[in-house]
Amino acid sequence: MSAIRSGSGHKTFFASSDDSRICVVMVGLPARGKSLIAGKAMRYLAWVGVKARIFNVGTYRRNATPQPSANFFDPHNSEGEKMRRAAAEAAITDMIKWFKNGQGVVAILDATNSTKKRRRWIHETCRDAGIETLFVESVCDDEELIMNNILEVKTTSPDYKGQDPEVAALDFRNRIRNYEKVYEGIDDDEKEFTYVKLINVGSTVIINQIKNYLSSRLVYYIQNLHIKPRSIWLSRHGESQYNLTGKIGGDSSISERGEAYAKALPGLLRKSGVPPNTKLVIWTSTLKRTIQTARHLAAETGYEKLEWKALDELDSGVCDGLTYEEIAERYPEDFAARDEDKYNYRYRGGESYRDVVIRLEPIIMELERSENVIIVTHQAVLRCIYAYFLNIPQEKSPWMEVPLHTLIKLTPRAYGTEEKRFKADIPAVSTWRAKGTSAKHQDYTTEVKA
Amino acid sequence: MSAIRSGSGHKTFFASSDDSRICVVMVGLPARGKSLIAGKAMRYLAWVGVKARIFNVGTYRRNATPQPSANFFDPHNSEGEKMRRAAAEAAITDMIKWFKNGQGVVAILDATNSTKKRRRWIHETCRDAGIETLFVESVCDDEELIMNNILEVKTTSPDYKGQDPEVAALDFRNRIRNYEKVYEGIDDDEKEFTYVKLINVGSTVIINQIKNYLSSRLVYYIQNLHIKPRSIWLSRHGESQYNLTGKIGGDSSISERGEAYAKALPGLLRKSGVPPNTKLVIWTSTLKRTIQTARHLAAETGYEKLEWKALDELDSGVCDGLTYEEIAERYPEDFAARDEDKYNYRYRGGESYRDVVIRLEPIIMELERSENVIIVTHQAVLRCIYAYFLNIPQEKSPWMEVPLHTLIKLTPRAYGTEEKRFKADIPAVSTWRAKGTSAKHQDYTTEVKA
Repeated sequence: MSAIRSGSGHKTFFASSDDSRICVVMVGLPARGKSLIAGKAMRYLAWVGVKARIFNVGTYRRNATPQPSANFFDPHNSEGEKMRRAAAEAAITDMIKWFKNGQGVVAILDATNSTKKRRRWIHETCRDAGIETLFVESVCDDEELIMNNILEVKTTSPDYKGQDPEVAALDFRNRIRNYEKVYEGIDDDEKEFTYVKLINVGSTVIINQIKNYLSSRLVYYIQNLHIKPRSIWLSRHGESQYNLTGKIGGDSSISERGEAYAKALPGLLRKSGVPPNTKLVIWTSTLKRTIQTARHLAAETGYEKLEWKALDELDSGVCDGLTYEEIAERYPEDFAARDEDKYNYRYRGGESYRDVVIRLEPIIMELERSENVIIVTHQAVLRCIYAYFLNIPQEKSPWMEVPLHTLIKLTPRAYGTEEKRFKADIPAVSTWRAKGTSAKHQDYTTEVKA
Repeated sequence: MSAIRSGSGHKTFFASSDDSRICVVMVGLPARGKSLIAGKAMRYLAWVGVKARIFNVGTYRRNATPQPSANFFDPHNSEGEKMRRAAAEAAITDMIKWFKNGQGVVAILDATNSTKKRRRWIHETCRDAGIETLFVESVCDDEELIMNNILEVKTTSPDYKGQDPEVAALDFRNRIRNYEKVYEGIDDDEKEFTYVKLINVGSTVIINQIKNYLSSRLVYYIQNLHIKPRSIWLSRHGESQYNLTGKIGGDSSISERGEAYAKALPGLLRKSGVPPNTKLVIWTSTLKRTIQTARHLAAETGYEKLEWKALDELDSGVCDGLTYEEIAERYPEDFAARDEDKYNYRYRGGESYRDVVIRLEPIIMELERSENVIIVTHQAVLRCIYAYFLNIPQEKSPWMEVPLHTLIKLTPRAYGTEEKRFKADIPAVSTWRAKGTSAKHQDYTTEVKA
């Protein structure tokens, strides 16, 4: 999505027209994937440059009650109820402070928020502070999904740290039963609220009264999520003719060694572990070097291929076809400015990393919808995609080292993304330039050994 | 949305990964805006380059029964029922033929399809022909909305041609009552179907089992539609320094006459008719000439301003800053190739009209969500936006004349878009070049009188 909406040098991506501040209120029983959704939404917002923060009510509650038993969550336990309400109040107070003190745009309130009364109170408290609410309810009646979540929680939640996993699982199920006693799903009584209701993680989605641009984008993101196990493989093209001479941009073919990498790629992919009976889809850019690199892979596997213009390399404008030495010589100020703020620096007549992120947004959306995909693309584009999955901050992502002739396998897990790298034993030049180094430090003849 | 997905020169925008062919099945009582939604979806798909066609069952039915009375639609009228079923069968037979014979990707079946039995039959018939179904139900309990639709139908439907409007309205209401007797909305029994249910035109949306990319995009489009009355104003920037010298691209300031247009714009907008108490939002590109042109308008009205990079002029790559004469001289083959197929021609290192449409897609999506907007942008971009609203075919839109110093007011109506043009009495050069003319035919000193 290429919506730069800003009056000040494209500093914002999603700046909604009315400067709205939004509280995303998670709703759902325990083990319904609320934290997973909250975490992904948070990562997505950070990636597109929207200042967001999660306020986890459980964290506040644990300050007072570090390891409560299921009994604490019994609706008839008035002491427990009082403490849980106090935790919610503390979280919301902090959230309102955060909005007031900074540039915060989206707060995510991660808690069960399982009664109409609680939700109305949150809505009214937010409204009085000039904050819109967007309720996101996750409903799930798929027992397998719930069990997986329970297993995840009992092994990762601070509530059960150091406890016997079996005891923890049993207690957690009892806690869920206590919540079930009072749980009220969002229904027609709450028609005036803006909400999205996800049933079994996106198989059915109900969307109500979406009012602004940012909410509409966020809801579209959330409705596209799925939790089927899968991996995403990332590779740069094989070494290109331009890489050999240190030139940037262009549309050159791959070198002899690049061709060797293209031939090695099917074997490297197998080595990385493709689950049996899995069909990948191959995505490339529209530039020769990525198409050539994916050629043998496509021929050997019969996987479907797609070319995306959005995967083309960062456009270096007037510097296209130059070496870093030449850029430093011809455009010394630009060269320094780029080092200063590489994420925001836009080549004359070309793009910045920020521009690339914006044009990659639909790619990320489609990746969220997809299952197993291998992407053969370019250094800057790969950095941006990688930054999304690994949650790399904007100031760091443009400096990340992504060597040629290396396959990266990313496997999304409930709380983060697992990464493995597989190097082909095929030498290539290094195209990485350290911040602050003069262009001449680039040694294009150095061969990087696998 | 910048998803070019294609193995053959970006010929497709929405080509879904599995070559899926989709039948969009409209569902709903008469006067629920089904044809409006079908028409807009059709226009959107054509604009993004997806071959689509509407199959209107009413048209088939009218072949046999040109002007039926409400009685024809009584569920107890077995003759009527038989003929309506025959019309549906004829429409679907033609649709399957259309898919088989051509490059058709989306067929829209416009009819009430008001029973579960009918829908299951359509689903199974499509499935057997290798066609996916996407049901789009429009539910409406807003009496005003329904009455507006009834008024529209009685004055435009061929069923009531030449009849007394009062009699027609009465008959049409009776027809609706007959449908109501048997109407079954989509519910949990149809959970295995892919569907979207729009309640009161987008205020609540239920989305179920969306399986592929194209459906997901189409559903996102449909869920963003609204039918509040509004207008969209389009203007190019005021005459620029580059316009004066016949250069394309660049980021020059506006000329003296351009500045005069910027000053005249608030008055021109008032003259065009802005409903009382209406707040417009001003959208510009990120280039100086559009920001300068909107400056006085923003200052005088206090309307909110937004800059969109997606509204920047078509990138002419290596030709940026050249005149058409210079392009014809330096790149004669390119110049000829562009004349040959201006929509698809991509400047070296730059963009084609097709590329521009792709990056404008989120702008169109946001325009559908928005109310009154004035867009100050560039010739090629304006042509693309205009083509969307006026349904101009791809081969024609790049040649359309959009003079400088002219405000275009577009008002979407139920069955098309109304257009009015308002010329400022401020001369400007003409930047229009006719197909096949040599570049020298451009007379940059000719002043176009208002």
